[in-house]
Amino acid sequence: MPSYTAPITDSRFILDAVLGLDTLAARGGAFAGATSDVVAAVLEEAGRFAAERLFPLNQSGDREGCTRHEDGSVTTPTGFREAYVAMAAGGWTTLGAPEAVGGQGLPAVVATVVSEYFSAANHSFAMYSGLTEGAVEAILTVGSDAQKSLYVPPMVAGRWTGTMNLTEPQCGTDLGLIRTKADPQVDGSYRISGTKIFISAGEHDLTENIIHLVLARTPGAPAGSKGISLFIVPKFLVEPDGTLGPRNALSCGSLEHKMGIHGNATCVMNYDSAIGWLLGEENRGLAAMFVMMNAARLWVGVQGLAQGEVAYQNAALYATERRQGRALTGPAEPDAVADPLLVHPDVRRMLMEAKALTEGLRALCLWGALQVDLAHHGQSDKEKQDAADLLSLLTPVIKGYGTDQGFHVAVMAQQIFGGHGYIAENGMEQYVRDARIAMIYEGANGVQAMDLVGRKLPAEGGRAIRLFFETITAETGEARAAGGEVAALADALDKANGQLQAATVWMMQHGLARPDNAGAGAYAFMHLTGIVALGLMWLRMARAAAERLAAGGGDTAFLTAKLTTARFFAERLMPRAGALRREIEGGADAVMALPAEAFLPNA
Amino acid sequence: MPSYTAPITDSRFILDAVLGLDTLAARGGAFAGATSDVVAAVLEEAGRFAAERLFPLNQSGDREGCTRHEDGSVTTPTGFREAYVAMAAGGWTTLGAPEAVGGQGLPAVVATVVSEYFSAANHSFAMYSGLTEGAVEAILTVGSDAQKSLYVPPMVAGRWTGTMNLTEPQCGTDLGLIRTKADPQVDGSYRISGTKIFISAGEHDLTENIIHLVLARTPGAPAGSKGISLFIVPKFLVEPDGTLGPRNALSCGSLEHKMGIHGNATCVMNYDSAIGWLLGEENRGLAAMFVMMNAARLWVGVQGLAQGEVAYQNAALYATERRQGRALTGPAEPDAVADPLLVHPDVRRMLMEAKALTEGLRALCLWGALQVDLAHHGQSDKEKQDAADLLSLLTPVIKGYGTDQGFHVAVMAQQIFGGHGYIAENGMEQYVRDARIAMIYEGANGVQAMDLVGRKLPAEGGRAIRLFFETITAETGEARAAGGEVAALADALDKANGQLQAATVWMMQHGLARPDNAGAGAYAFMHLTGIVALGLMWLRMARAAAERLAAGGGDTAFLTAKLTTARFFAERLMPRAGALRREIEGGADAVMALPAEAFLPNA
Repeated sequence: MPSYTAPITDSRFILDAVLGLDTLAARGGAFAGATSDVVAAVLEEAGRFAAERLFPLNQSGDREGCTRHEDGSVTTPTGFREAYVAMAAGGWTTLGAPEAVGGQGLPAVVATVVSEYFSAANHSFAMYSGLTEGAVEAILTVGSDAQKSLYVPPMVAGRWTGTMNLTEPQCGTDLGLIRTKADPQVDGSYRISGTKIFISAGEHDLTENIIHLVLARTPGAPAGSKGISLFIVPKFLVEPDGTLGPRNALSCGSLEHKMGIHGNATCVMNYDSAIGWLLGEENRGLAAMFVMMNAARLWVGVQGLAQGEVAYQNAALYATERRQGRALTGPAEPDAVADPLLVHPDVRRMLMEAKALTEGLRALCLWGALQVDLAHHGQSDKEKQDAADLLSLLTPVIKGYGTDQGFHVAVMAQQIFGGHGYIAENGMEQYVRDARIAMIYEGANGVQAMDLVGRKLPAEGGRAIRLFFETITAETGEARAAGGEVAALADALDKANGQLQAATVWMMQHGLARPDNAGAGAYAFMHLTGIVALGLMWLRMARAAAERLAAGGGDTAFLTAKLTTARFFAERLMPRAGALRREIEGGADAVMALPAEAFLPNA
Repeated sequence: MPSYTAPITDSRFILDAVLGLDTLAARGGAFAGATSDVVAAVLEEAGRFAAERLFPLNQSGDREGCTRHEDGSVTTPTGFREAYVAMAAGGWTTLGAPEAVGGQGLPAVVATVVSEYFSAANHSFAMYSGLTEGAVEAILTVGSDAQKSLYVPPMVAGRWTGTMNLTEPQCGTDLGLIRTKADPQVDGSYRISGTKIFISAGEHDLTENIIHLVLARTPGAPAGSKGISLFIVPKFLVEPDGTLGPRNALSCGSLEHKMGIHGNATCVMNYDSAIGWLLGEENRGLAAMFVMMNAARLWVGVQGLAQGEVAYQNAALYATERRQGRALTGPAEPDAVADPLLVHPDVRRMLMEAKALTEGLRALCLWGALQVDLAHHGQSDKEKQDAADLLSLLTPVIKGYGTDQGFHVAVMAQQIFGGHGYIAENGMEQYVRDARIAMIYEGANGVQAMDLVGRKLPAEGGRAIRLFFETITAETGEARAAGGEVAALADALDKANGQLQAATVWMMQHGLARPDNAGAGAYAFMHLTGIVALGLMWLRMARAAAERLAAGGGDTAFLTAKLTTARFFAERLMPRAGALRREIEGGADAVMALPAEAFLPNA
């Protein structure tokens, strides 16, 4: 039987010792509520809810899946509805939302910890409320005051959920190809007609209403992505007093059969002259959707981490319990029939890699989430600007590198189980199947790589990446000055960062001269940036651990493990930076040379 | 709808231009039957059978799976039985078996091509006959003459199948823990009692009998792996005249629910005083089983390649058909609504990587299979010895690196489909799920890595790896002397080989001094060896292509693509060699340092 324990010790270490949330709380303002004891209590409760209410529904939800009935209604797996009601009643949907709309106004960085726990415990379940948060964000950012007050409070309260309707059969990444139509009516509303596919949580039985945000074209709109508008299209129309009116002309046409996330209803949605209202400006729908999308991309990165974490936890437990073979150095437990798997260096290698990646990704996701807070609530324009720059740079890295590595960790964790990892009952293969989607949705990871290289890197003359480099150089300098164990980490990070800097210069020169060079190296560049970003996180964690150890405070075993894991990251995972740089510098020639026919069988 | 086309052009290029099978055929003897026209006809027919009979059952077999009935009988998916009968009638089970037992006596290297096609078309289906080949090999190697003549001909003919019964609930890799008992009877037979798990094809409705090879302990046998014997335990006892006698006391207790290979019946097998006969010597069962296992490991490497190939083919087709976005260099097809996916450098990167890996692995698998032929039928003791050495060294690399990369290719191919890759109907996610098992069974890939580093590397004072290095040095020298495009490949290969040589020296020194150093670096060493081996294959393919082009013969487009793909491998994939060497040289310190508790949640 698989298990899950929320990694509260590590989350709190990152929040306090690495990100200095306790110091920020002392600032007051938007951080005022995030005092150490409040955060501790929130994480305790969230961890308990995740482990006790959500995790027990994870395997059963996968096995049972969602069911669409003839009338188009959809039933979620047994227990999901009760758990959803309990989640809303517990206030878990309100954490990060502003107090003005019924939220608790906690910083995004705290809400992100909770979303990791919920995703790890039950990826499919957590998607229902997670998508709602993105829809709330979009309405709060571009909606009218009336829209904000009508739709947002019930969504924040967990009484309604939200969705994103982008994809159509003929268009995924290329949203310029959208065909769904929006015809303006005399009363200011629109009639929405078209088919959307892959709509997560498009229909379900968890809440009384669903607020769909739908991309569509108005008559005469410019072709391509500049002619797309965003609409609010509720399942049940909402009366001005907030009560539910008639059923709107939209329905779930079918559910997709998927590799994983069976507990989430992935719907084909049919809009048949459904009533909708423009959200934000006409023809500016893509920009509005990107508000939602950028928040969602950070969250998907967290999902990658989350599936890696739960898979790692189970593999680690298995490795301490399952006995097979003997240590290379002689029997570790001679009286037992065999030693635990953990004695085998290659099992250790996988666990250490999983530990280094999940803890590093946790720090990176939370650092990213903190930039969301600082971009809005920083003390100075510079602090806000820096945070916005870092967030913009880090978002595709957290999404793309984070989900790639989350999947990789899940696959390694499954591997530790041997044949037992392939058997459904043991739960490991579900983590792999569920983790796989995170590399695909909210912009496939190749799209993230192009976002990083094509947009984020050159923006404002490279201001964001320069800030990233300066941050690293400053921190490695401090670490080296402090000496000791962290000085070696600083050297390793500087070396990896040097590879990234060289790759950046190469990209600037050769990508500009020939865009295909940028495209061909984008994916490797994203991974290289990810390694360096994780290296920075490990340097910070190691420095914080060393300081706490020197001060004689804290949990010695935990802090010592941080130092060892940081060293593992530097010695075993950072060397890939050099290979990635060389891969980038390979350029586009061999990548782009073949004619299309050369890829076909027996060409 | 997914599709499959056997890659006959590439298989024949490798057999003829790279491995010189036509030259070997001229030797006569064991290679006599493998003339170019015979091989061409066999591959044509095999490709057609795979594509037309086996592939159409792949998705339906996955969806339907196997069914166990209350009486313990098992039904395979609809159509499997008819296809199996057709396969046997077509002589496809007899290809590589000796003529003395009813086989066609074709070289292993030719049979391996066919097994790639069958595995690619239907992994689950191909396992039924594939496992039989391993069982036949074991009986032919260690069985008595009576056993050979009684059991082997019907197995070769496809009338009976065979299985390997190793795993028990408490033991997988560590076969020393086996508990199944074998009690000797006065008539020379044994009574076998125990439970085996994860028995592929343990029960089914394809053939009238199943010959189980079962590892068990005789009374008073030494503890551990030195007290294990191998037994023939038929489902139906076989009369001396070859007719079927009474049902033996063995049965399928249940079927496992698995991540993939749903079309293959993975059984819990219960032996309840079943009648069995010793196969080979008492207490030498593990050695006998390894005869079977080593053949099976090569075959599993081919399975990795095969799932990579079918996934790659479908991704390549999709990339030429699906239109999304525009080329970075401006619209490639301005009159269409969008350009095909293939214009995007990152999609190309994935396809080129898939192409470089699958074609490289195909050459490596076939080179490995050729060593099976040469080890048995070489012209001199030296040729035989060299082939046996190379085979022994390459087997864990083909299995471990090959299946890792096959899975990686399947995941990339799925990624090219975006959201459509996650949907079951499109078939891509099945390739990922099916490919995943190959990294686990027949010795998990970590076990392969330890086999390579702990046994194959030091054997006979490093004779095999020295031969491997000498081969590379000789061939890069020739390539450089010839000049032109292949000289650059030779340089890249020498560089990667230099990393492997340095890592080997490091392993010899530090692994001997501290075995955990060898264990901690084993996996990276396996991948490093895989990269160098694929580099050698690409050098050979490039040289053969360049020679044919220079001679003005052959398919110019195909040969030019070989040169481009070779360059891609050198520029984009070979740089990883340096990172792997550094990872190895990181050693065991950080890997082994943490106490077990540090891996537990909230430690």
